[in-house]
Amino acid sequence: MGVREIGLPEVTRSPESPELPEKVTIWEVGPRDGLQNESGAVPTAVKLEFINRLNAAGLPVVETTSFVHPKWVPQLSDAAEVVDGLARKPGVRYPVLVPNERGLERALSSGVEDVAIFASATESFAERNLNSRFDDQFAMFRPVVRKAVEAGVRVRGYLSMVFGDPWEGQVSVDRVVSAGRRLLEMGCDRLSLGDTIGVATPGQVEAVLRAFRAADVPVGRIGVHFHDTYGQALANTYAALRMGVSTVDSSAGGLGGCPYAGSATGNLATEDLVWMLQGLGIEHGVDLKMLVDASTWMEEQLGKPSPSAVVKALAR
Amino acid sequence: MGVREIGLPEVTRSPESPELPEKVTIWEVGPRDGLQNESGAVPTAVKLEFINRLNAAGLPVVETTSFVHPKWVPQLSDAAEVVDGLARKPGVRYPVLVPNERGLERALSSGVEDVAIFASATESFAERNLNSRFDDQFAMFRPVVRKAVEAGVRVRGYLSMVFGDPWEGQVSVDRVVSAGRRLLEMGCDRLSLGDTIGVATPGQVEAVLRAFRAADVPVGRIGVHFHDTYGQALANTYAALRMGVSTVDSSAGGLGGCPYAGSATGNLATEDLVWMLQGLGIEHGVDLKMLVDASTWMEEQLGKPSPSAVVKALAR
Repeated sequence: MGVREIGLPEVTRSPESPELPEKVTIWEVGPRDGLQNESGAVPTAVKLEFINRLNAAGLPVVETTSFVHPKWVPQLSDAAEVVDGLARKPGVRYPVLVPNERGLERALSSGVEDVAIFASATESFAERNLNSRFDDQFAMFRPVVRKAVEAGVRVRGYLSMVFGDPWEGQVSVDRVVSAGRRLLEMGCDRLSLGDTIGVATPGQVEAVLRAFRAADVPVGRIGVHFHDTYGQALANTYAALRMGVSTVDSSAGGLGGCPYAGSATGNLATEDLVWMLQGLGIEHGVDLKMLVDASTWMEEQLGKPSPSAVVKALAR
Repeated sequence: MGVREIGLPEVTRSPESPELPEKVTIWEVGPRDGLQNESGAVPTAVKLEFINRLNAAGLPVVETTSFVHPKWVPQLSDAAEVVDGLARKPGVRYPVLVPNERGLERALSSGVEDVAIFASATESFAERNLNSRFDDQFAMFRPVVRKAVEAGVRVRGYLSMVFGDPWEGQVSVDRVVSAGRRLLEMGCDRLSLGDTIGVATPGQVEAVLRAFRAADVPVGRIGVHFHDTYGQALANTYAALRMGVSTVDSSAGGLGGCPYAGSATGNLATEDLVWMLQGLGIEHGVDLKMLVDASTWMEEQLGKPSPSAVVKALAR
């Protein structure tokens, strides 16, 4: 008798955590956050084929690209071509990042129905990433969000450096909650709380989510976005699920990196997330084998191995 | 202003988990479980230097080697030399694995004060790893444990394949608890529950620990031993800590592999565990920088990079 094909984990609902969500929406960020942080240029046709494969694997949201100025992120300079070329699958959302009004205009003229803005929870990162003061970023984003909402487009507000900042160190939870509320109040329908440098641990995740709860922000409006720089992403995700979070960002194959740490480790890998959700009996809608195939295919296109443990274990 | 040196995470006690232990004993298995699964032969002097560096980093338990027959694990054929050469640090334990009475005799004549036996929770692995029936393994271990206890030596009982078996698939929780109790009843002072193939997810970990609790086995007698084959090791560890577990096995730098999955990913990396414990405000006694230095040194000896995310992020 040989070794069995191990394809999926055993399902055991968490007996200590009856509050775990029944269903999680995986917000796939590989084509945007992943490829944005890969050094090589990826042909538009490869991006589109990758997105098609992610669609086929059942992902309900595929963040597609960013309408940032090509000078800043040349990897995504084909944003309009990618959106034009999408083979849209019914029921699937294809959000794009828009850094400012000019980006929003380009996105809207491409027919985009979902956008995201990228704000900072800290002064230092606002200055460096947005060339803005912390307080001024909200004035900058307000007309973007208003115009998007007027155009009938949903807006997600990313909040970055929520759990630590490479220049400032610790980040005040009060400031995080205040910044998150300002994004919601200006018209964002959802928040994504980002551990941009991957330093968070589970108690901190619980403390931040508890602070949003105390500020009357419904947990259904909050997603989490963990990087695996220090190996904590999935443990932090489990802590967030236990607080009722039901939207989790991840990147197929763990694509991407962290520009602020000397590490190749990037976003939480979607495959590793799916393994845990499957084992916890949480509905996710993804065919893990097809997803691993998509990431394996993308490994070949990029010429570098996926850091995802599940991809390494299941890909032959 | 430049990027700050990120050396340790911010400390936030877990507000949702007041039951987390105040202190965790890290049971370092790198020199034994790690090197046992590395293909290359490592010189005895390198092993001893590695153990010295782990000592210097503050690890309270360093599982040193295995007195298995050299025919089965040639990597550890220098077990007696390693034990002889130890620069024992006061207060530190140096357990060794003993597969049978002959191994115990060799270990005792080397002056060992701590041993471990390695049992199976499944029929298939008992046959393949122990050349025994599941039920017969207890008769095989009983005289080993009795003689060790008579010699004043503590015995840890490893239970392997607790969360899944590569030949059988799912493993009955009742069988796991029954096997664990039999090991304790014959004189083992502690158990280590092993996810030998790395398939477990957090709900399953909680279910198994809850079953031991229901069988009146004190959680203080239980350690956990996770492999990161599918990226779940640290999330599973967090689930175990929340159940009151305060002994966690790990391997410096994530040394080791899994012989039953097509993956190079081995034991939970001690560095990634320390990062989480530190962030959770749980006492661990380890100097993370010195530990990363030890693993970086060992990488050079083995000529292959550590899979630990923390080692990758912190090593320059």
